[in-house]
Amino acid sequence: MRVIVCGGDGFCGWPTALHLSARGHDVAILDSLIRRQWDNELGTQSLLPIAALQERVEKWRELTGRTVRTYVGDLTDAAFLTGVLCQEQPTGVVHFAEQRSAPYSMIDRQHAVFTQVNNVVGTLNLLYGIKEIVPNCHLVKLGTMGEYGTPNIDIEEGYIEIRHKGRSDLLPYPKQPGSMYHLSKVHDSHNIHFCCRAWGLAATDLNQGVVYGVQTAETAMDPVLFNRLDTDEVFGTALNRFIAEAAIGQPLTVYGRGGQTRGFIQIVDTVRCIELALDHPAKAGEFRVFNQFTEQFSVGDLAARVVAVAATLGLSATIAHLPNPRVEREEHYYKATHTALIDLGLRPHLLDEALLGDLLRLAVRFAERILPGKLLPTVKWR
Amino acid sequence: MRVIVCGGDGFCGWPTALHLSARGHDVAILDSLIRRQWDNELGTQSLLPIAALQERVEKWRELTGRTVRTYVGDLTDAAFLTGVLCQEQPTGVVHFAEQRSAPYSMIDRQHAVFTQVNNVVGTLNLLYGIKEIVPNCHLVKLGTMGEYGTPNIDIEEGYIEIRHKGRSDLLPYPKQPGSMYHLSKVHDSHNIHFCCRAWGLAATDLNQGVVYGVQTAETAMDPVLFNRLDTDEVFGTALNRFIAEAAIGQPLTVYGRGGQTRGFIQIVDTVRCIELALDHPAKAGEFRVFNQFTEQFSVGDLAARVVAVAATLGLSATIAHLPNPRVEREEHYYKATHTALIDLGLRPHLLDEALLGDLLRLAVRFAERILPGKLLPTVKWR
Repeated sequence: MRVIVCGGDGFCGWPTALHLSARGHDVAILDSLIRRQWDNELGTQSLLPIAALQERVEKWRELTGRTVRTYVGDLTDAAFLTGVLCQEQPTGVVHFAEQRSAPYSMIDRQHAVFTQVNNVVGTLNLLYGIKEIVPNCHLVKLGTMGEYGTPNIDIEEGYIEIRHKGRSDLLPYPKQPGSMYHLSKVHDSHNIHFCCRAWGLAATDLNQGVVYGVQTAETAMDPVLFNRLDTDEVFGTALNRFIAEAAIGQPLTVYGRGGQTRGFIQIVDTVRCIELALDHPAKAGEFRVFNQFTEQFSVGDLAARVVAVAATLGLSATIAHLPNPRVEREEHYYKATHTALIDLGLRPHLLDEALLGDLLRLAVRFAERILPGKLLPTVKWR
Repeated sequence: MRVIVCGGDGFCGWPTALHLSARGHDVAILDSLIRRQWDNELGTQSLLPIAALQERVEKWRELTGRTVRTYVGDLTDAAFLTGVLCQEQPTGVVHFAEQRSAPYSMIDRQHAVFTQVNNVVGTLNLLYGIKEIVPNCHLVKLGTMGEYGTPNIDIEEGYIEIRHKGRSDLLPYPKQPGSMYHLSKVHDSHNIHFCCRAWGLAATDLNQGVVYGVQTAETAMDPVLFNRLDTDEVFGTALNRFIAEAAIGQPLTVYGRGGQTRGFIQIVDTVRCIELALDHPAKAGEFRVFNQFTEQFSVGDLAARVVAVAATLGLSATIAHLPNPRVEREEHYYKATHTALIDLGLRPHLLDEALLGDLLRLAVRFAERILPGKLLPTVKWR
């Protein structure tokens, strides 16, 4: 398969590009490298030092003999994108190339507008590009479980059968996203769905949970291939923040009561899910939605597990509850279906002590790269 | 009440501004005048000649002694908007200032991207402006019945109670919009809903049906106050196109089988609905949705009614079915609730022979302003 990984320099995109390349696909990376610039803007850095994209793909070629072509440019630049699609003639496009931090989108008006315009226009350009240049190409788009919010009924995979006043229909699942970023993904989903209906495009929307872990078999091959890991308040997840806090002896900062429950997935399963979606493409005209996570945890659960594993490594971690900077329910019903990818063959790697231990050891090893001033929340939802 | 009407130079905005002014509210118009520029771009013109905005408000002052202040600028210009909000300190903002043509949004990639960026960013700027400058101001936003699409169950007003696997929740009604424009309104609805939940803003989303008619008591007072009426394929509605075609002796062009059913509302009821929404504002934190239409018709029904009334005026009209340039169901279930505005006091003006006769006489009177080359569909959905 000829696959373009848009956003292939990022936390999910880079290991995905290598995984697909290792499995024998012909892979190109399209990335504007703006994620690296956001580190400059925010004064943050990845826990693991990461090499330049060009070094990364050169090392990959050296170690495996496999070539990953790179195109440095932005999806919001339609002329650039058109050129890449004409050149590559992909059979699949994996689209990670979005601003993916909820706090970043909530910094202020400008960051909200940037996030929505960047994500919506990039995806629209990709949809038009596929329609005009490679109409049979399968679009694999990363959505988020956060599109659904926390409804008081079970979350289904994209659609729900509604019976109402004696009639019924299978309709898009109602969306209640919780940030300007999550909203941008909801907008994308509606746009892609329309293009499948109107133009017959084939798309899979992967509503991914929170991704944890850092390395895959491929990124672990050499330090030049190392994946990024964000621990700061803006781009880091709660789990990554807890790991960093435990490593430098700070209390684990739980937002509010910690009952917020979400779906989670390990990075090694993320790359496998993308492969499964590509191997079993959506049909022409089909807008297929999978919920891409393997387990659900509350923030409080995660903090408790990190405390327990930290103790086995001689790290004495405590938990501090902070006023919640976000607007979200801290106690709520949460049950989400996630069987479609299992049915395609996913065998989940669950969160265990070994993985938490590995992450904590990494954080201790690179502790001097953790910036304590960047861990506490400064971005407020209200 | 101090009210800003954004888009107050347009087809719905202008009569709304005058109606609110006539009812004693202190009204300002914010408009970029870009709708006039789109006529230049497309080579089209309003059936009724319209005066410049500045002439319009000057004539209104002359006739009534009432001042309507004007601010010419764009909602996507946050600095401009901030200045207007600081100056006006509105208690209500009515937001019509969007690109509102489905065919315009479907011309090509650039028009799709323009429509979504223009509408989404304008609304985001307004939400941030209200939050920061006038947090108690009531936002009255124009949505569209087209956000819902044509589901196989009854359409409710914004929300639907869903019972699922033994639990239930009141959730946003699922959206299946049919063009890049309709999608932009769905994006707006999700964004506004979030800002009500997160920031406690008060908003009413008016999912308006297709508006017909042209004059109100106020716009009919003087030719300088005349409202615009679009008959071209891009900005005209099916009914307006039929009226123009009958007036110049061309067949009435029905897209496809003509079973497409939609909600309709007369312009005199539009202005009254806005007034009712302002008089009975949403509460802080409330995202209220009203379906703003009074009757539903199929396209085929409308064509038949125009043919019948045209005959009484000595116009011999025929119907021609064209291949449908849009992607839409031509036979479908359609039943939409619309009781909230009635409950607030709306007394609907229904479509009757008298109004159709008035429109046909206007079209005959201004027949030389109808451009026959602009009536047939050139914008294709596929």
